[in-house]
Amino acid sequence: MIIVLKPDASKEQITLFKESLKDKYNVSVNTWIGVESTVLGLIGDTTQVDEDWVNAQEVVENIKRVQEPYKKANRKFHPDNTVIELPTGQKIGDGNLCIMAGPCSVENEEQINYVAQRVKAAGASFLRGGAFKPRTSPYSFQGLKSEGLDLLKGARKVTGLPIVTEIMRVAHIDMFEGVDIIQVGARNMQNFELLKELGKIDKPILLKRGLANTIEEWLMSAEYIMAGGNNKVILCERGIRTYETATRNTLDLSAVPVIKKLSHLPVIVDPSHATGKSWLVPQMAMAAVASGADGLMIEVHNDPKHALSDGAQSLTPDQFDDVAKKVFALKKAYDEIMK
Amino acid sequence: MIIVLKPDASKEQITLFKESLKDKYNVSVNTWIGVESTVLGLIGDTTQVDEDWVNAQEVVENIKRVQEPYKKANRKFHPDNTVIELPTGQKIGDGNLCIMAGPCSVENEEQINYVAQRVKAAGASFLRGGAFKPRTSPYSFQGLKSEGLDLLKGARKVTGLPIVTEIMRVAHIDMFEGVDIIQVGARNMQNFELLKELGKIDKPILLKRGLANTIEEWLMSAEYIMAGGNNKVILCERGIRTYETATRNTLDLSAVPVIKKLSHLPVIVDPSHATGKSWLVPQMAMAAVASGADGLMIEVHNDPKHALSDGAQSLTPDQFDDVAKKVFALKKAYDEIMK
Amino acid sequence: MIIVLKPDASKEQITLFKESLKDKYNVSVNTWIGVESTVLGLIGDTTQVDEDWVNAQEVVENIKRVQEPYKKANRKFHPDNTVIELPTGQKIGDGNLCIMAGPCSVENEEQINYVAQRVKAAGASFLRGGAFKPRTSPYSFQGLKSEGLDLLKGARKVTGLPIVTEIMRVAHIDMFEGVDIIQVGARNMQNFELLKELGKIDKPILLKRGLANTIEEWLMSAEYIMAGGNNKVILCERGIRTYETATRNTLDLSAVPVIKKLSHLPVIVDPSHATGKSWLVPQMAMAAVASGADGLMIEVHNDPKHALSDGAQSLTPDQFDDVAKKVFALKKAYDEIMK
Amino acid sequence: MIIVLKPDASKEQITLFKESLKDKYNVSVNTWIGVESTVLGLIGDTTQVDEDWVNAQEVVENIKRVQEPYKKANRKFHPDNTVIELPTGQKIGDGNLCIMAGPCSVENEEQINYVAQRVKAAGASFLRGGAFKPRTSPYSFQGLKSEGLDLLKGARKVTGLPIVTEIMRVAHIDMFEGVDIIQVGARNMQNFELLKELGKIDKPILLKRGLANTIEEWLMSAEYIMAGGNNKVILCERGIRTYETATRNTLDLSAVPVIKKLSHLPVIVDPSHATGKSWLVPQMAMAAVASGADGLMIEVHNDPKHALSDGAQSLTPDQFDDVAKKVFALKKAYDEIMK
Repeated sequence: MIIVLKPDASKEQITLFKESLKDKYNVSVNTWIGVESTVLGLIGDTTQVDEDWVNAQEVVENIKRVQEPYKKANRKFHPDNTVIELPTGQKIGDGNLCIMAGPCSVENEEQINYVAQRVKAAGASFLRGGAFKPRTSPYSFQGLKSEGLDLLKGARKVTGLPIVTEIMRVAHIDMFEGVDIIQVGARNMQNFELLKELGKIDKPILLKRGLANTIEEWLMSAEYIMAGGNNKVILCERGIRTYETATRNTLDLSAVPVIKKLSHLPVIVDPSHATGKSWLVPQMAMAAVASGADGLMIEVHNDPKHALSDGAQSLTPDQFDDVAKKVFALKKAYDEIMK
Repeated sequence: MIIVLKPDASKEQITLFKESLKDKYNVSVNTWIGVESTVLGLIGDTTQVDEDWVNAQEVVENIKRVQEPYKKANRKFHPDNTVIELPTGQKIGDGNLCIMAGPCSVENEEQINYVAQRVKAAGASFLRGGAFKPRTSPYSFQGLKSEGLDLLKGARKVTGLPIVTEIMRVAHIDMFEGVDIIQVGARNMQNFELLKELGKIDKPILLKRGLANTIEEWLMSAEYIMAGGNNKVILCERGIRTYETATRNTLDLSAVPVIKKLSHLPVIVDPSHATGKSWLVPQMAMAAVASGADGLMIEVHNDPKHALSDGAQSLTPDQFDDVAKKVFALKKAYDEIMK
Repeated sequence: MIIVLKPDASKEQITLFKESLKDKYNVSVNTWIGVESTVLGLIGDTTQVDEDWVNAQEVVENIKRVQEPYKKANRKFHPDNTVIELPTGQKIGDGNLCIMAGPCSVENEEQINYVAQRVKAAGASFLRGGAFKPRTSPYSFQGLKSEGLDLLKGARKVTGLPIVTEIMRVAHIDMFEGVDIIQVGARNMQNFELLKELGKIDKPILLKRGLANTIEEWLMSAEYIMAGGNNKVILCERGIRTYETATRNTLDLSAVPVIKKLSHLPVIVDPSHATGKSWLVPQMAMAAVASGADGLMIEVHNDPKHALSDGAQSLTPDQFDDVAKKVFALKKAYDEIMK
Repeated sequence: MIIVLKPDASKEQITLFKESLKDKYNVSVNTWIGVESTVLGLIGDTTQVDEDWVNAQEVVENIKRVQEPYKKANRKFHPDNTVIELPTGQKIGDGNLCIMAGPCSVENEEQINYVAQRVKAAGASFLRGGAFKPRTSPYSFQGLKSEGLDLLKGARKVTGLPIVTEIMRVAHIDMFEGVDIIQVGARNMQNFELLKELGKIDKPILLKRGLANTIEEWLMSAEYIMAGGNNKVILCERGIRTYETATRNTLDLSAVPVIKKLSHLPVIVDPSHATGKSWLVPQMAMAAVASGADGLMIEVHNDPKHALSDGAQSLTPDQFDDVAKKVFALKKAYDEIMK
């Protein structure tokens, strides 16, 4: 960490500040005296150094991190890719394209079983479906809740597909015992209390990027989970909020190679939520594959126009068949080319 | 609600769609046939109409709301300003400028009591202070937790100032029993599970605007609380995320008159979090008063350079004395002018 | 165009307003009377209707366009893809992947000839290079200007590659006579005076998306050029400004399929400016191909670390060889898959 | 300037790089060797150092400026406020609130003379009005052009108010000879060719902030004008582009005190363009005064509902009378308080 001091900082102030840095954080401090201002460089483990505290010191003009503030999620300290393997054998991050598909909301047994069978047949290796739904309006359908979880488990029995579903509340963690991958939605990416508790369990967590969060904040949220002891974090890019209104969000595919450089965690892409429009999903799924993503999360509904939520962005099973065929073919070609 | 249909929608499709609208939402439907496309207009209570569902219908090109999607927070159905009165007599939204001041984090008894006395003497009518702190890094100080709540109550005893503090988890609601105003932080603005539970209690909720949430989403989150029966919602503008890096966030003061037009709820402004820099707080506090805000939330710390969090944006008690004097003077002049 | 009137608009006001609409714009007007408000629907050519004027009318609450405001750039009125062919035979938009490559700035004869030969050998079909450079700082290198144009022409002679270079001023149009494709940079996307003049010449214009412009505004800028009679517009996505700082801009690849739906114009992608980092260029070039782009614009410099501008995002000729091989291979596979 | 080197940079590479820095920019270089990486500090005038070049060097990880990249616009080298005085005596930046008011577009003699008289009577000291209009659509009214300039001069004769109007093209500079203050609009803030030419004349330039430009970029554009020798630059905040749709742009009032700290140039605020809604103008004009602005730019139209452009955001002369009275009263109270 580099600390630029104010031009008018006195010698005494600087000495005092340097000593407090050493005491507080067990780092050593180098000093460089420039014409306009003095600059300090901290040596040692600076992930513990509190930027807020440093910034608040009277003599400090501003600071610059050289080290990233995350450790467990950092590729520097963990050069190999993390591969997450489920007890049932499915892997994420092993170089293959994993597809999680299913409806936005679980609606009834027939629906979820039918969609599960169809997405499995098309090549998906996970069934996704919402039981608890975060909705902007209190008057919108909020999900089937625990009944939805049961229906997902039923569909898993029928198809063998592990299930991925969103949690919205710490108190539900026990209820999610039987879920294979627990999803943290964009709106809860910085629900730190939830992250802390998920760090204490031994189950993969799919962490969606927040509506307007930076890649660094996203990795810090992964760090929250990992700091608790749970290293099984899967990142999911789902579009960020910008001024553009042609799409619901702006899919940030450059986040994929950036994450790959900074972190060892697997990263997948959700083109359905990112674009909000089913006609854009196939093309952006293709682009996601070519961006180097480890997987895709795609909404598929047996009957989008009667869906209880997010129908506008869902593919029909027939459309999904086509997309899956194409993305697997592209992935094969991509792997051949990148070899 | 106005629904624009696709140019190629057939007569039969349109008829079917109109019937499903009537059945589903108990609205009547007007039809306008244009040259390029057909447009439907829904008459009746459309707050219940699910935009997702409508958008997903095959015949639908896009939709436009004429009515706002919130009801209880809507000024149309509640023309008078809401005034929130505490059992101890303090009011928010009654035309006066209410100031909530105190440290970002409660640190110890001496600190909180000292700051409480100083901000009271300067004219603040509420003591704010964090016991549970949402921090980007799991390695940063997370607050004194329940001990912090006790210290706040102690400071209330000493000064008589009601206390405002942030909740981060549903399970803590009982623990917040003795708190006067419960704050929902920016990162939890769309933590719908928390909002629902706060809707069931009878205590004012200070709802901060999310990092990158629209005014409509913010009012929808207020609606979540109100839909549960708790009408005591205070909105707090605290800056939004933009591309500008000179300030931590961009304070959106135009949100104040926009909220005043759309809603009857009181709205206050937090210049400390919005700018992230103590030297900007006084000026933006002045601007907030002139934007018509009902109050201010300002960070004050006895010793900002030793603060455990957010010191860079905290005022000293002496600086706060000066700011308070100025904003009250400006408020007086403003009221005189606007009369 | 749909116009929602204010709830308190009187019958007389509405009648007057409707008549002024008919007089002013030669449209017919349908009226739909709802419970809360009255809505008008305009029938006819509404591209001429001035939204500002409509919005300013006392009775108007807000408006919604059903038709897009652009005509000549609109796929509705021109269903076939536009293919731009140069006198020398190169085509853009014909289904092949066209690559424009070269240095950010032309620096000297040796450099530009060397780079031109290398990018040609790798498969690029256009040479790009800046002679006039828009720089944030007045103290930065501003380009070799007319000498740079001459060097580009020299490199064209040597390689046969048509040249693409940026114009910054109306007065330079004559000087650009010998240029094959004139580029309008992001900062000039709404330099309407320049666009108007470029509409009067018969030469392809490469129109980069503005730093923070919507897709609709971008198409309106294309419309400016086309309204003058020049239909040869190539759109170039080069990243938009967001809050994210890990990349210089956020590459919006979903803009590619959106443009393909709304317009018939070819669209290419510039991963170099979008990311600002050379190590991200290969991956995002791959993703751009899979998003359906008609081409790529890539910065290549013989010696990036001595480049006079934008070296951080330039590839070396060797790196470009590798990228070109990969993107052409991916394009081949992509075409096979999408057939 | 601080330069962080890559962890794997070799001793030889570092030595070579340091020498090239000294040669190229005539700076001296300090070296600090940390555990993870080596950091260089440049001493001397670093405004000439090309960040692009530095970033492109193989050994460079990233850089951090300690000095601002602008010099002539920098308060550090010019501590006193710049006061711009017109030959006719009006001053901007002298501590008073200067108001520039008038219609978006000049439409005819009667209109502009009437509005000029009304805004003068209300206390405005400048007449603003558009003769050349930047419009998103080529089919919208583009202004009366040179006839508009003549009408403005006529209104100046009648009222004595100096005139402010927008230039869109270098070739028009001669035509603007008789204009008192030349405005550069938001879309041309980085039209560097125009800025350079405006740097060569001796006339105040009103430089509006770009749609999505940072404060630093804005000051760099001022530097472009000043580098040419014209120090008479007035900055104008007019809202920035964000995701919020309730207002046309988001007025960034914190830019006012930030500019005041970084620069000595006067800064005014345009609440009309920022909000896009006339009903928001009075409140945001008040807030702008309390943010410390040197002046206001407000749209006033004799008959907003018949305005040829931007009617929705224009005040009537009667409304402007009221706003002017209030802002002057607030300014008086504000000055008293801040004394």
